[in-house]
Amino acid sequence: MGQGLKNRGYTREDVDERRKAVEDFSSARLGSVAGYTVDPEGAKSNIENMIGCTQIPLGYVGPVKVNGEYAEGEFLVPMATTEGALIASVNRGCSLINSGGGANVRVIGDNMTRAPVFRVDGVAHALDVIDWIGENIESLKDAAESTTRRGKLLGIEAFPNGRNLFLRFSYHTADAMGMNMCTIATEAASRVIEENTGAVMISVSGNMCTDKKPAAMNMISGRGKTVIADCIIPNAEIEDRTKASVDAIVETNYRKNLVGSAMAGSLGQNAHVANMLAAMFIATGQDPAQVVEGSMTSTLCENADGDLYISVRIPALEVGSVGGGTKLPTQGEALDIMDCRGEGKALKLAEIMAVAVLAGELSTLGAQSAGHLGKAHAELGR
Amino acid sequence: MGQGLKNRGYTREDVDERRKAVEDFSSARLGSVAGYTVDPEGAKSNIENMIGCTQIPLGYVGPVKVNGEYAEGEFLVPMATTEGALIASVNRGCSLINSGGGANVRVIGDNMTRAPVFRVDGVAHALDVIDWIGENIESLKDAAESTTRRGKLLGIEAFPNGRNLFLRFSYHTADAMGMNMCTIATEAASRVIEENTGAVMISVSGNMCTDKKPAAMNMISGRGKTVIADCIIPNAEIEDRTKASVDAIVETNYRKNLVGSAMAGSLGQNAHVANMLAAMFIATGQDPAQVVEGSMTSTLCENADGDLYISVRIPALEVGSVGGGTKLPTQGEALDIMDCRGEGKALKLAEIMAVAVLAGELSTLGAQSAGHLGKAHAELGR
Amino acid sequence: MGQGLKNRGYTREDVDERRKAVEDFSSARLGSVAGYTVDPEGAKSNIENMIGCTQIPLGYVGPVKVNGEYAEGEFLVPMATTEGALIASVNRGCSLINSGGGANVRVIGDNMTRAPVFRVDGVAHALDVIDWIGENIESLKDAAESTTRRGKLLGIEAFPNGRNLFLRFSYHTADAMGMNMCTIATEAASRVIEENTGAVMISVSGNMCTDKKPAAMNMISGRGKTVIADCIIPNAEIEDRTKASVDAIVETNYRKNLVGSAMAGSLGQNAHVANMLAAMFIATGQDPAQVVEGSMTSTLCENADGDLYISVRIPALEVGSVGGGTKLPTQGEALDIMDCRGEGKALKLAEIMAVAVLAGELSTLGAQSAGHLGKAHAELGR
Amino acid sequence: MGQGLKNRGYTREDVDERRKAVEDFSSARLGSVAGYTVDPEGAKSNIENMIGCTQIPLGYVGPVKVNGEYAEGEFLVPMATTEGALIASVNRGCSLINSGGGANVRVIGDNMTRAPVFRVDGVAHALDVIDWIGENIESLKDAAESTTRRGKLLGIEAFPNGRNLFLRFSYHTADAMGMNMCTIATEAASRVIEENTGAVMISVSGNMCTDKKPAAMNMISGRGKTVIADCIIPNAEIEDRTKASVDAIVETNYRKNLVGSAMAGSLGQNAHVANMLAAMFIATGQDPAQVVEGSMTSTLCENADGDLYISVRIPALEVGSVGGGTKLPTQGEALDIMDCRGEGKALKLAEIMAVAVLAGELSTLGAQSAGHLGKAHAELGR
Repeated sequence: MGQGLKNRGYTREDVDERRKAVEDFSSARLGSVAGYTVDPEGAKSNIENMIGCTQIPLGYVGPVKVNGEYAEGEFLVPMATTEGALIASVNRGCSLINSGGGANVRVIGDNMTRAPVFRVDGVAHALDVIDWIGENIESLKDAAESTTRRGKLLGIEAFPNGRNLFLRFSYHTADAMGMNMCTIATEAASRVIEENTGAVMISVSGNMCTDKKPAAMNMISGRGKTVIADCIIPNAEIEDRTKASVDAIVETNYRKNLVGSAMAGSLGQNAHVANMLAAMFIATGQDPAQVVEGSMTSTLCENADGDLYISVRIPALEVGSVGGGTKLPTQGEALDIMDCRGEGKALKLAEIMAVAVLAGELSTLGAQSAGHLGKAHAELGR
Repeated sequence: MGQGLKNRGYTREDVDERRKAVEDFSSARLGSVAGYTVDPEGAKSNIENMIGCTQIPLGYVGPVKVNGEYAEGEFLVPMATTEGALIASVNRGCSLINSGGGANVRVIGDNMTRAPVFRVDGVAHALDVIDWIGENIESLKDAAESTTRRGKLLGIEAFPNGRNLFLRFSYHTADAMGMNMCTIATEAASRVIEENTGAVMISVSGNMCTDKKPAAMNMISGRGKTVIADCIIPNAEIEDRTKASVDAIVETNYRKNLVGSAMAGSLGQNAHVANMLAAMFIATGQDPAQVVEGSMTSTLCENADGDLYISVRIPALEVGSVGGGTKLPTQGEALDIMDCRGEGKALKLAEIMAVAVLAGELSTLGAQSAGHLGKAHAELGR
Repeated sequence: MGQGLKNRGYTREDVDERRKAVEDFSSARLGSVAGYTVDPEGAKSNIENMIGCTQIPLGYVGPVKVNGEYAEGEFLVPMATTEGALIASVNRGCSLINSGGGANVRVIGDNMTRAPVFRVDGVAHALDVIDWIGENIESLKDAAESTTRRGKLLGIEAFPNGRNLFLRFSYHTADAMGMNMCTIATEAASRVIEENTGAVMISVSGNMCTDKKPAAMNMISGRGKTVIADCIIPNAEIEDRTKASVDAIVETNYRKNLVGSAMAGSLGQNAHVANMLAAMFIATGQDPAQVVEGSMTSTLCENADGDLYISVRIPALEVGSVGGGTKLPTQGEALDIMDCRGEGKALKLAEIMAVAVLAGELSTLGAQSAGHLGKAHAELGR
Repeated sequence: MGQGLKNRGYTREDVDERRKAVEDFSSARLGSVAGYTVDPEGAKSNIENMIGCTQIPLGYVGPVKVNGEYAEGEFLVPMATTEGALIASVNRGCSLINSGGGANVRVIGDNMTRAPVFRVDGVAHALDVIDWIGENIESLKDAAESTTRRGKLLGIEAFPNGRNLFLRFSYHTADAMGMNMCTIATEAASRVIEENTGAVMISVSGNMCTDKKPAAMNMISGRGKTVIADCIIPNAEIEDRTKASVDAIVETNYRKNLVGSAMAGSLGQNAHVANMLAAMFIATGQDPAQVVEGSMTSTLCENADGDLYISVRIPALEVGSVGGGTKLPTQGEALDIMDCRGEGKALKLAEIMAVAVLAGELSTLGAQSAGHLGKAHAELGR
């Protein structure tokens, strides 16, 4: 495949030329891929080697009533998916939530992390470096924050192990998801550490961050937004709309999400949180690889005086209302549906997403629970 | 928001009507969302409440040389992403792989699982049920396979725990990812178990499957396709193109992917496998929530007589060349780029994807390793 | 410290001489350590550098009624511990179990594993080696079993990853815990593999065994004996003897063992299984380091029509009735208390131990649950 | 079995009577069990239903040179074990450490935790309770510390999840391991929380402590003493005494402890840390069930300019020099061997133990690495 193909341009013609070259190379016909409306110039910071666009069907769920600190009221939630029945199911969950007066939701953690790994001489040196960091935290803060307009360094946690020293930097990143911001700021601070301590940075990410991999550390301590949400659904609504019962759902959650997840050695315990996150992340221009962290969510159900109490704890919801894919046209519009585009909206977005996750869990647990009841009913009918 | 909005239609007009209603409800202007070319009728089984499409910029990497059992030759690999630099980086990895003669890749496991949870009376009853299953495996096979043209039940593994009995069904699903196929087949077999043993199915998914959640069980035993890939990159190429060295990359992989991941309590150890998987999954109509399982990949680097040996083990690559989102126009075209659309192509697709994952890991490890060298060089230059 | 000290003898005089030298070196006075009755010659295969004995207070719990396959009837269970209240608590659990007619118990898995790691050339070579093993499994069985009178090789599971090939050998080890037996047999088979395939054994234990470390693999698949036990305790007994209630215990188990364990990223979910195992292991000459694997136990509680259903699943109970520390005098006598010394008794021992574990869990959950009730009562009494 | 048996006395006669009754019940002859020298009165707080003592052969390793903050100089380390070759192996490790000038060791964390779980009304209530705790931390400190002479409450970390609120209390416990101290102090503080917030304590241990179960939380954040140790062993010594090489040991550690542990889903990565901990815990009267937490140790090896760098990070070494089993005669004497009995000695004890762990890891890695070399030599010799 020739060099001509890999032109670096961002005009429509450049895109066409590349797409053509791909067709030539592969004998694929890329007519639909070519049917995009996005201006390639506007996607400059989002992709290289662009040949067109993938179109993902976009739908929505809701309105769902959200009783949050940042999101208050009824919201429609956009979801881009190719999995039939997902939206219908989450939508049912939304209407169940509404029947209970809406869902409560709170952001209990808000910090993005980056953890470089340094090579040190050993145990004694590691402690010297840690001491130095403790005494010079203000200079490190200055170095880190000199690289960013919005980011604030909240703290550095140290984990020495042999000749390795992991430093977990935590930042407040305002309304951006903030991974790049944190990486650049951490590099700057790390250079200061290197110059003063003899520690050598081996990688700006030492995997104790932990980005885009499932890690107990994030499940426990959180990363990005940590969000909890709950609601109570009246028994009558459960029976009417899910054909299950409160006790059946509680039992399903116990056997499936708690016992089953534990026996499989899972991080997190839920039905299908990744589904809702993926659909919302794609719709709103979030990083879909970060669905991984959100998938460690805990879903719990209890019988609340005959009604259903259901909750989710999403330990690591890494989203932003500015930057990254949010700048693209369809993604920005999707954010607009929730009035979540731009500055000052990231926490609102996190709250709405958590409620949509709750809706999806509720609906699926209801459906799975009704399975055995349905069958029981069928038998009784004979 | 009125009922009228939620029309169930699949014409363009239905889509328009819904989008309009969303605009009215939310005051968002959804012009870009409306700029889709996909026929909504064709997305009938992929979405509900459709209001348009999300456009994700589509690019590609390659050509990359693949020495697989099903994929042989040079391939371009489509990726849909909004993360700048991802494609450029993976592309660099591809050319490094080519410089070493391409990547070897093998599919070492191919089965999709579904694990219902049953309620039993206790320890003794659980063992009776397990005995019954052992004696009636053929009838269960018949029941399961009666629901599917392609799926084959390979076996059932039993995990009793108190009043819970988890049965992990494994299937060969031909060229489909096969989750739905397995669910339906498992339900059918489970009904037979219920009728004959007194065990009561509580949920067709008991989370020992484990779908869309990170679970050690899948990391160890695999789900979907388990794929391993490797290659050797000449030292000169590493130094020339990454500005790092073989030893620096090996050290980065050791400190970051092995030690750092372990200290974070991670399942899997890699740099950013979820990135490549998400971009390819979205481009080709796979289920993006299943990136979660693939993110448990192990990436290893060794010094091979002065050159770089690098490998990945993807324990759970849940992909198909038919069904689901692969039927959509842009997604199908993306598959065409690799000649991976339709029957007989799933294993080929898995092999190519694994090599692209390897390329992405290689490139990022190189970049992170060069970071500290680069800085050292800068200092020397002063 | 002189060489004379480290005599290699096993007479009482040798022991005295060493103890004296330790006293000289350290200024400790070791009068109690010297007060042992064990014949050092008999401990030849159990220790080096012997200077005396540690005396651990030995008590017992029971009788407890066991309804097992190998253990049937009432048993006293010896426990060696220095933790006050442990025996009293487990004893209370035993009498609760008796009040419910005893505990059911079954051994559902019985195999000891050893997993060497081999260095291979890469992906393709690994698969060649695996193929060779598949075709020569009988020769490997012969090689392995040539080293042992009792051990039987049940199978070999292969896990390739880059230049690593892990082979998990499973054995039936008769009445011995069998770790050494498996190691020797595996070495023999591994030599055959090395000679025929070019794979190089790097370590006879590659940590996928996994011995004496907590690993999801063993929690899921089991190692040594996998044992499940349960019982039902009448509500009246619960209220009378624990001052808690069935619902309180079920709630404690849910919030503590299921939710709390999950949030802490635990392998297993229980209250204090390691306590019972350690006390029984020490009393009966088992390897106390293998308590680690047993600690991954799952304890579950349910309301069974108003009574308490409680169960344990011990995934890896690595015990024997012959070999190791069981040959020592006090340890052998402890086994005698349960009629579990010698050949044909390992499974019986495993069943009794599992019931004692169940008793300990029951009692502690009762006590913790009564905590808040007790306080509530106190408040009501004001 | 009669009531008479279960006398509650602590005289030798009481012990005799019980032992007799056990003999009658079981037909075991308990002559060796009766051969103890410990005064039962002195074991009052350590056991109930005492019938004698288990004798565990006691040996020692060392002297080993320790370069710690609290332990400086050469120490003999007592180990009680029934596993032949363990002491010989650790001893070899000690002499290797000495050949490198001794081991460096530091205690980097020192706090014991207890995490009760409370029932709250839901998300909003949980946050109210957390707010109240933040504002009343001093009163809680007072309440907690009113129950203990030595314990200091260091902080409380809150983890809300649905209707559960976990509060992880951290204490400094002076020279005691301190579990009981923490439990009592936490109960006192929890009563204050209950009275003021409406939260209901369900269990004083909610398993986020996490005691005697393997949990990522402790591996990451530590519990009891967190200790790191390292040393460098000259290449010549490695080759001379282990018949392995530096590179072979580094490779073994990489393939076995890092890759193998990761693939098994382990918490921690080491060869056999639990062995050393169990033997030292039993010898010195520590709680052997807490070996579980220590087993999550990380062992690392690197080539240090041709010599071997080896280190351990023990995240949770829960030991004390006062209280519990340390008060018993043989156990106290074992502590005396290291001059670690009584007040002011806990950190010294932790440092010495960590070095013994390092010695054991070093020796076993050497032995396993020599395995394949040994074989290679054997072949060459033919």
